[in-house]
Amino acid sequence: MFDAYGTLFDVHSVAALCDQLWPGKGAALSQLWRAKQLEYTWQRSLMRRYEDFARITEGSLRYACAALGLPVDEERRRSLTRAYLKLTIFPEVRDALAALRDSRLKLAILSNGSPAMLRPLVANAGLRGLIGIVISVDQRKIYKPAPAVYRLAAQRLRVPKPTIGFVSSNCWDACGAKSFGFRTFWINRTGAPVDELGATPDHVIGSLTELPALIRRPLS
Amino acid sequence: MFDAYGTLFDVHSVAALCDQLWPGKGAALSQLWRAKQLEYTWQRSLMRRYEDFARITEGSLRYACAALGLPVDEERRRSLTRAYLKLTIFPEVRDALAALRDSRLKLAILSNGSPAMLRPLVANAGLRGLIGIVISVDQRKIYKPAPAVYRLAAQRLRVPKPTIGFVSSNCWDACGAKSFGFRTFWINRTGAPVDELGATPDHVIGSLTELPALIRRPLS
Repeated sequence: MFDAYGTLFDVHSVAALCDQLWPGKGAALSQLWRAKQLEYTWQRSLMRRYEDFARITEGSLRYACAALGLPVDEERRRSLTRAYLKLTIFPEVRDALAALRDSRLKLAILSNGSPAMLRPLVANAGLRGLIGIVISVDQRKIYKPAPAVYRLAAQRLRVPKPTIGFVSSNCWDACGAKSFGFRTFWINRTGAPVDELGATPDHVIGSLTELPALIRRPLS
Repeated sequence: MFDAYGTLFDVHSVAALCDQLWPGKGAALSQLWRAKQLEYTWQRSLMRRYEDFARITEGSLRYACAALGLPVDEERRRSLTRAYLKLTIFPEVRDALAALRDSRLKLAILSNGSPAMLRPLVANAGLRGLIGIVISVDQRKIYKPAPAVYRLAAQRLRVPKPTIGFVSSNCWDACGAKSFGFRTFWINRTGAPVDELGATPDHVIGSLTELPALIRRPLS
């Protein structure tokens, strides 16, 4: 079971379009947009003011543009939110997923994204043949790392929790899944320290490429 | 009712000590320490793995030092967490609080801090004579902006929600308090945009100095 944004899909692949719209500002906008997007998921979950990830993504974009002093009209806003439906996958994703599928594992996504965002995202990346099940937190109206979200995934898959391998490059997401009871794999692409959240991922790997060899070994 | 960290007390007043311990790294450490401290409050609240703010502050310091490659031993760690009990107040705080007290308002703090952190913090700043009531989220084992926290404060003060003026320089905190039903004042010291959280502060001010004149006017 894979997280989508940041794990399979590179959220910063929008930086190029950002840079086209506001030359020299692409990386800063993309970083702040993503940071605020995540903050809003946590804060709105705690406030019990859920709104779906498409609207969170729009709100965080508005905030980030305002904070950086970048004028944004309806057309630019639309082109950026559309770009979020065509995020690039990381280079190793397709081969790694194919290898996992070939060893008869059932592949799924568990994502903050709303169904209307995830459907085109998976299709545009050509992953529909590889990933059979796509689960959105939207059914529970709360975001990761709330246990209700991981519980939803376990209920959908109908297998015991520890037989689910959960893969995320967001360390707090891997910690949340571990705290719930999944076997967890943190993809640490940037060499960051483990988050101090009282539950640590079972495995730390550099990319999805390491997964097929690792996943067949039981947790020691 | 005032938020403490960032509102009355300057969390970045630890940057000087950080810079003494790791020359040239003070600002970066202080920023990352604070950012992670807040993230952990939100993530642990959602994970239902509450631990008190003193331990969150230690954990986020460990993370920030590791992320920045700064070697930290027990002595440095202790001197930094001790510094968190002696944070500087913003320059206008004492006069503004005195003016509010003189107009017979009851002053209180509602903070993420644990009681053991807040007691010395308020005393060291010489604010004990001005602020009569100090409320910690620790009683509810969840962090801001969960409604349970603002509800705790309303219960303690025993007055109707809209008669409570809640003041925070953390926009998401002011939004959370507004969403709960307080009259809210966001101190926007840095000229940031309003957060997109579905509830906006009633008043936006530049510093506490504007409060005494404003607070007597009813919400239009």
